[in-house]
Amino acid sequence: MKVHLVGTGLIGTSLGLALTGHGDEVTLEDAVATHAALARDLGAGRLDAGPDLAPDLVVVATPPDVTAVCVADALDRWPEAVVTDVASVKGAVLAQLRHRDADLRRYCGSHPMAGRERSGAVAGRHDLFEGRAWVLTPTKETSPEAVRAVTRVARAAGAAVRELPPEEHDRAVAAVSHVPQLAASLVAARLEELDEPSVALAGQGLRDVTRIAASDPNLWTQILAGNAGAVREVLAGLAADLASVIEALGALEAGSDAPGARGTLARAIAAGNAGHARIPGKHGAAPTSYTTVRILIPDRPGQLGRLFADIGDIGANVEEFRLDHGLGQAFGVAEVDVVPAAGAALADALAERGWQIHG
Amino acid sequence: MKVHLVGTGLIGTSLGLALTGHGDEVTLEDAVATHAALARDLGAGRLDAGPDLAPDLVVVATPPDVTAVCVADALDRWPEAVVTDVASVKGAVLAQLRHRDADLRRYCGSHPMAGRERSGAVAGRHDLFEGRAWVLTPTKETSPEAVRAVTRVARAAGAAVRELPPEEHDRAVAAVSHVPQLAASLVAARLEELDEPSVALAGQGLRDVTRIAASDPNLWTQILAGNAGAVREVLAGLAADLASVIEALGALEAGSDAPGARGTLARAIAAGNAGHARIPGKHGAAPTSYTTVRILIPDRPGQLGRLFADIGDIGANVEEFRLDHGLGQAFGVAEVDVVPAAGAALADALAERGWQIHG
Repeated sequence: MKVHLVGTGLIGTSLGLALTGHGDEVTLEDAVATHAALARDLGAGRLDAGPDLAPDLVVVATPPDVTAVCVADALDRWPEAVVTDVASVKGAVLAQLRHRDADLRRYCGSHPMAGRERSGAVAGRHDLFEGRAWVLTPTKETSPEAVRAVTRVARAAGAAVRELPPEEHDRAVAAVSHVPQLAASLVAARLEELDEPSVALAGQGLRDVTRIAASDPNLWTQILAGNAGAVREVLAGLAADLASVIEALGALEAGSDAPGARGTLARAIAAGNAGHARIPGKHGAAPTSYTTVRILIPDRPGQLGRLFADIGDIGANVEEFRLDHGLGQAFGVAEVDVVPAAGAALADALAERGWQIHG
Repeated sequence: MKVHLVGTGLIGTSLGLALTGHGDEVTLEDAVATHAALARDLGAGRLDAGPDLAPDLVVVATPPDVTAVCVADALDRWPEAVVTDVASVKGAVLAQLRHRDADLRRYCGSHPMAGRERSGAVAGRHDLFEGRAWVLTPTKETSPEAVRAVTRVARAAGAAVRELPPEEHDRAVAAVSHVPQLAASLVAARLEELDEPSVALAGQGLRDVTRIAASDPNLWTQILAGNAGAVREVLAGLAADLASVIEALGALEAGSDAPGARGTLARAIAAGNAGHARIPGKHGAAPTSYTTVRILIPDRPGQLGRLFADIGDIGANVEEFRLDHGLGQAFGVAEVDVVPAAGAALADALAERGWQIHG
């Protein structure tokens, strides 16, 4: 398959690396010539954007703001090719293409659910899409051939293909990606003016909630602007809940210990319990219950390596591994999840090797 | 030291285990007799609440709602003893004690920054406080002896003692703990009504942001109600930022692509960057830069164990270990952080052993 990539940032370069590895013929172009050259040097494909190029599929992997323009341009330049894009928002791109009277039979929008906090060609990885969902958002105009071509490329990159209507995709990512990003950013922003002794009390909960607050403002402005409607709708629900919580706190602060105010707080936390329980576990399956073996780790060079060696030696099939060591902590605690049947044996075997185990 | 514990839930039982291990003489009581008996059976101390008891220190480890009553009661029952409590909120407890004309010379409020998502005596661990911060919140009335007694117990449990005025403590935990909890709950609550194909797109970002949304509504209602003022203040700032974001999204949705609206979004994400950068890294030190070695892991039994064995064998001093495997993913990616000087050697040694490494 001949695939032409427009845009050689993280996503374009990673896709070029994956498809080249798969044996596809990949050509590259980027508005910034040195970016394309870097992607080529990294092995993502060869440079070519000439009129004689006859790609089967063009993948537009540019920032969201210019995606529609680049898709329309690609549909014009290669009248035989199928064109897709990989933007995180789909409705806005489609609306712009309709406005431009683009040939929508040859266009099938898509969104690989993969990314990193780093960007650019140097951050590219041939396995970026390996095992990730790649959402296709065909419309009624999209030809079956177009869907097939994008499906082939997504699978060649190792992704699992799903289909959703564009609006449904946008509503979904508003709730599972865009609003969580904003919440993380808004919570982290509260720390900006906090004094040093207060920030020093930060624990693992805060770290988890705000990890993605380190993301790129420029890219996220484009994503949020491109999905303004769906994000606003989810945020409006969140803002209403937040207003109830603030009102309840105000009532409690004023000394009214009305059960109504406490009920509002309890319901907010309980609704979070219910929503949290819906998040699928590993591999998209229902959350599986594992047994957690907790191991105390002295914070000396080599202890974690020694633990790894012992676990490997014991031969346990580890499902998850977490390391927890907060502020001012001399010891760390490692949490190893294994299937319930294997928990006791692993704990015993580690204890025999001198590790301190906690239930 | 003779320490009497009032309340044998997670915190009380854990403290009993730690102090008993340290050689202190620990007595236990709980409003629910079977709870106290369970803590005793677990080795947290012996049951005794008689008038002849002459503790040096009484630690009240009850739910926040009844903390002040129990502290006042303890000050009455043992007129020679120092009394502390471990509630997550300090100003409300102090206000109630003042209202009751309690003997504040013998009282020093405190808050060990330790906990688990599980509760009750069975979840107790002797190392729960190991390396955690334990905040003392003395007032001008608090005697030096009271501060010394609480400090001794906190240190005996392995914690690092810090001092903060009660109001400052409450403002700090509002920002670093209570508001993040609410944000996680409110974001997770958005998933309650989402359809299945949409929830299925959940990735690691959402998982991180919402992990603590699984917490106990009853306990959290008490914590939030007890710190209503400080939490409301931080939430008011967050709500104002949220309102600006919603307004900006509304403007963009209405087709006004004014730079002002985009600027608001960019500033919200950038402020999150700045706040996130203030969170201290491991051991409370400034965030350290590590090199991350990324290893592709086939999702077959034993692969993670094999990786642990190899890393142990290589002898690398691992600083952090993360496992990333999202939806529908056949392969996982392990991220191992080591000091920059050790990165290349670890990557090479793992590659030699047949692992696929990514930069």
